[in-house]
Amino acid sequence: MTDMARTEARQVSLDQFDQMVQEVSNWGRWGNDDERGAMNFLTPDRIVAAAQLVRSGRTVSMSLPWNTEAGPDNPRPALHYMTQLGDRDPGEPQTNADFLGSDFHGKATSHLDALCHADFRGQLYNGVPQSSIGSAGASFASVMSVEHGIVGRGVLLDIPHLRGVDWLEPGTAVLPDEVVAAEEAQGVRLGKGDIVLVRSGHYKRRQTLGPWAPFYLSAGLHVSAVRLLWEREISVLGADGDSDARPSPVDDMLSPVHALTLNAMGVHLLDNLQLEDVASACIEERRWEFFCVIAPLRVPGGTGSPINPIAIF
Amino acid sequence: MTDMARTEARQVSLDQFDQMVQEVSNWGRWGNDDERGAMNFLTPDRIVAAAQLVRSGRTVSMSLPWNTEAGPDNPRPALHYMTQLGDRDPGEPQTNADFLGSDFHGKATSHLDALCHADFRGQLYNGVPQSSIGSAGASFASVMSVEHGIVGRGVLLDIPHLRGVDWLEPGTAVLPDEVVAAEEAQGVRLGKGDIVLVRSGHYKRRQTLGPWAPFYLSAGLHVSAVRLLWEREISVLGADGDSDARPSPVDDMLSPVHALTLNAMGVHLLDNLQLEDVASACIEERRWEFFCVIAPLRVPGGTGSPINPIAIF
Amino acid sequence: MTDMARTEARQVSLDQFDQMVQEVSNWGRWGNDDERGAMNFLTPDRIVAAAQLVRSGRTVSMSLPWNTEAGPDNPRPALHYMTQLGDRDPGEPQTNADFLGSDFHGKATSHLDALCHADFRGQLYNGVPQSSIGSAGASFASVMSVEHGIVGRGVLLDIPHLRGVDWLEPGTAVLPDEVVAAEEAQGVRLGKGDIVLVRSGHYKRRQTLGPWAPFYLSAGLHVSAVRLLWEREISVLGADGDSDARPSPVDDMLSPVHALTLNAMGVHLLDNLQLEDVASACIEERRWEFFCVIAPLRVPGGTGSPINPIAIF
Amino acid sequence: MTDMARTEARQVSLDQFDQMVQEVSNWGRWGNDDERGAMNFLTPDRIVAAAQLVRSGRTVSMSLPWNTEAGPDNPRPALHYMTQLGDRDPGEPQTNADFLGSDFHGKATSHLDALCHADFRGQLYNGVPQSSIGSAGASFASVMSVEHGIVGRGVLLDIPHLRGVDWLEPGTAVLPDEVVAAEEAQGVRLGKGDIVLVRSGHYKRRQTLGPWAPFYLSAGLHVSAVRLLWEREISVLGADGDSDARPSPVDDMLSPVHALTLNAMGVHLLDNLQLEDVASACIEERRWEFFCVIAPLRVPGGTGSPINPIAIF
Repeated sequence: MTDMARTEARQVSLDQFDQMVQEVSNWGRWGNDDERGAMNFLTPDRIVAAAQLVRSGRTVSMSLPWNTEAGPDNPRPALHYMTQLGDRDPGEPQTNADFLGSDFHGKATSHLDALCHADFRGQLYNGVPQSSIGSAGASFASVMSVEHGIVGRGVLLDIPHLRGVDWLEPGTAVLPDEVVAAEEAQGVRLGKGDIVLVRSGHYKRRQTLGPWAPFYLSAGLHVSAVRLLWEREISVLGADGDSDARPSPVDDMLSPVHALTLNAMGVHLLDNLQLEDVASACIEERRWEFFCVIAPLRVPGGTGSPINPIAIF
Repeated sequence: MTDMARTEARQVSLDQFDQMVQEVSNWGRWGNDDERGAMNFLTPDRIVAAAQLVRSGRTVSMSLPWNTEAGPDNPRPALHYMTQLGDRDPGEPQTNADFLGSDFHGKATSHLDALCHADFRGQLYNGVPQSSIGSAGASFASVMSVEHGIVGRGVLLDIPHLRGVDWLEPGTAVLPDEVVAAEEAQGVRLGKGDIVLVRSGHYKRRQTLGPWAPFYLSAGLHVSAVRLLWEREISVLGADGDSDARPSPVDDMLSPVHALTLNAMGVHLLDNLQLEDVASACIEERRWEFFCVIAPLRVPGGTGSPINPIAIF
Repeated sequence: MTDMARTEARQVSLDQFDQMVQEVSNWGRWGNDDERGAMNFLTPDRIVAAAQLVRSGRTVSMSLPWNTEAGPDNPRPALHYMTQLGDRDPGEPQTNADFLGSDFHGKATSHLDALCHADFRGQLYNGVPQSSIGSAGASFASVMSVEHGIVGRGVLLDIPHLRGVDWLEPGTAVLPDEVVAAEEAQGVRLGKGDIVLVRSGHYKRRQTLGPWAPFYLSAGLHVSAVRLLWEREISVLGADGDSDARPSPVDDMLSPVHALTLNAMGVHLLDNLQLEDVASACIEERRWEFFCVIAPLRVPGGTGSPINPIAIF
Repeated sequence: MTDMARTEARQVSLDQFDQMVQEVSNWGRWGNDDERGAMNFLTPDRIVAAAQLVRSGRTVSMSLPWNTEAGPDNPRPALHYMTQLGDRDPGEPQTNADFLGSDFHGKATSHLDALCHADFRGQLYNGVPQSSIGSAGASFASVMSVEHGIVGRGVLLDIPHLRGVDWLEPGTAVLPDEVVAAEEAQGVRLGKGDIVLVRSGHYKRRQTLGPWAPFYLSAGLHVSAVRLLWEREISVLGADGDSDARPSPVDDMLSPVHALTLNAMGVHLLDNLQLEDVASACIEERRWEFFCVIAPLRVPGGTGSPINPIAIF
């Protein structure tokens, strides 16, 4: 159905990339003050339709465990400290409590990127200047733009399943025709308002072979596949990597998919998901679509949030 | 329908409380190794049934904003620091990023209490000894017990709405017959597997009159109402306070409802919710039940998690 | 010797303040690249001379205890969490360990202000632009400028002792002639390279009457006293407040002494010291000078450090 | 003068180690309530004598820089976040500020171990039970026991200088006769109340060859050298490793020197010092003794503190 040769990275020049930005830009599409971007596609009627997908009552976490161990893919380990151990209260009952902390962007914690996360050439989504964000946080397109949750149809594109492999080797860039092939094989078509999740098998590989430094070597969408997502008018893009293939196919750019999605299209990203459990569930349920709920913390001025996205079948 | 006099706190002796513990204990009910407690009531078929409640596609956050300001009700303010401001990456795009931290139990951050949070006389839920938890976290009944999310029917009991007031004054203890009265007035009956949310109007009062110290003065369920929840076999109890009325009606106990629910019944608690938005939505939608999704962070050994519970109508 | 009336705040206009800035500015005095400011006065020979003050071998901390309790004067409480409790190592010995954290500038933790801490009209000390500092920290005049410690003669100006009172009432502004009076009464004269510590009795008042909000009401030097410190060529200024009297005597400026010392003179500040113990020691030792050692943490890019300054008699 | 063969690790059985513990134990020596251990040797007269060593006025930091980069020797990187960047205050001057955080025990941050840090077979120094420490911190022998600073004579034992090498290879264990040889070569004799600093050249090796995992491979004192330190009645032991050689020469014990010093002798430890600068200064000053000041943060209940020890020549 597909073949490794076709997924070899095709190099893209900066000029070509600039043209891509123009093609997929949604700046101004929902007004100059819009802070929600492609979330505007995810209307109440689509939420209602998506809820029809709840048929078996199975729920599946798409999050990694909170990772407090430093490693090649976790240079900024999350913090977890016990603050009470049944020994501090005046009477009964006693309390066990803990502190959680995380500089959550990076490669090890499942998280949501708010639109303000990406600054491309001095501008955020919709042309708002980078200077709108300061030490107190973002005043535009913070995580508060999705404070009521991201709720809709989730669609898993399981590329290793399509290829019949356990995982994509780091560095693999998924081309648009393979996205189409996955749709066909899975009997699902990406559409307006969808929460699209692209599995590379990252976590299975990590559990099997150990961690590596995904900053330099990561499977993900080739930049040329973004145009298709724009045409289909999806709302959210998630991955078990961070949606960028690396080495990057664009000259001198580390994260071109971030620039195209967060910045130009206003598509929120979900990074470092754990898609192994949901992939197994899809196979067992024989469908690659489900009701999907993402509940970011309500952080005023925040650039995103650690999350535990839930797939409900 | 109800009357203020009836909600005056009735004092309960420690002997009476001990008897309540015996009556509502679910220890052993799902086996000696069970770590999920009343979550066992929330079966897949109930999740499917609950999804039928998604009819308008409206989503509502039931979380407070992340509160970094110290105050009478926030002695341990949450942390939010910017870690990148578009000035640290080698090329384009640039990144805005932040650190979040919280000793989240307490009175100001919406959070989930895992069953291991409450230690009553040296034992956790199901009789597991307190010594099972240490500086590395909990080995029993941690937040990982609900790692795949808490998904089901949410029912709001809007007591101020019932009484025709803006909020319950701090210190008010809600008696069981008022729970029944709210059910009747709202046309909903608490049942097996429900996620029950009791509104006191705490947040509206705080926004109107300013914060106070809820450790000593808080509206919530009277301890005598817990038996009714046990009979109805609910799974989760949430509140815009922390489910305990204070001053506590039980002699020498600060948080008797915590002991009864988390510890004896194995009912997870949701503390410090913001129920104003969902209360307005219920009135507009003319129903007090909805699809409810709670997605705690997957923290191995954690005693709970900050959360943003989502009501979906 | 002095009188309360004389210490009433004399209001200073912004024009008068600007002239003060001009008078005490040390910009360019030690070259355009200088990052140490008045620390240049504290030469090795002065360190040797100061060491002669070690005669009794008594050492005294001038630091507050690490304050993890929120309060009117501690809106950003410091963090202290146990990370190991003798229960995590594979064998013997076992370890007890803890995490410390602090957003240490503010009013409750004893700390050093590096010269980069104060930005006055877009410029740091020596005219370096504010843009030299970013999310990664300061590239100019960070705490690394004093990484080898601040070591020299410490001189305590004990104003309550001079006045015969327990403490100065918050709001009191100490005028220059009272500085001179304190010198005379104590038999010590401020001089080149000195570490000058001005006691208001802040901590004694706090311990006696409880905390208050020192952001709005604080005893400290009147802005007119700074000129004297400039003439005497001191190196460092410390206080049990933060060296600014509040309400500020300068129109529309909250912290004019910070601007004059850190920014114009290049004088490092020590804020929120605990000067009660050292004041008692000075009375018992019958001298108000001692060997003083301040050892800030070596934080690349840091704007200061929590400290425990040690007086050695 | 010495020879590599002599420093090969001699294995010590657990029985032999137990005998060492008996020989060097200071439990009860200063009373059953004593929390200061060998700090009792560091009397005011010794501080006065040590101050005579201040002759050139040179000050040298013996601390590593605050290390926020994860690595083989830094699995728990320290935190440094900017909290204000001249953009949050109402008027002038503006403020630059930052947050510092660290789980400071470990291998990468220079720090002090308080006596309560080591739990050996359920007991802390002086036989106090481990149960005296809980989630709120230590109630015995915390860092508050040295809140007024550690001030005295510092003596550097520069073993690589003695051997004529740049550094000791990780794994090297320094035997007692080499301690004596270093004393003789340097013309200094360890004595009562001394702060003894043993250089292995750890940091020079790290800067030259890169970091390694010092948990498993580290140069330091052989356990047999501790007896000599006990006889000389030193107060404090520091090292550019953590004072334990690894692999450990004692069967099944990772940190036997920690047990002997902190626990049995009541000798405070200084871990992960940076001794390169002070080693160069000693050579230039032609003396290996100096005035030494360590100023730990005043943390109630703390198990130690990050520090910047200052050598003053």
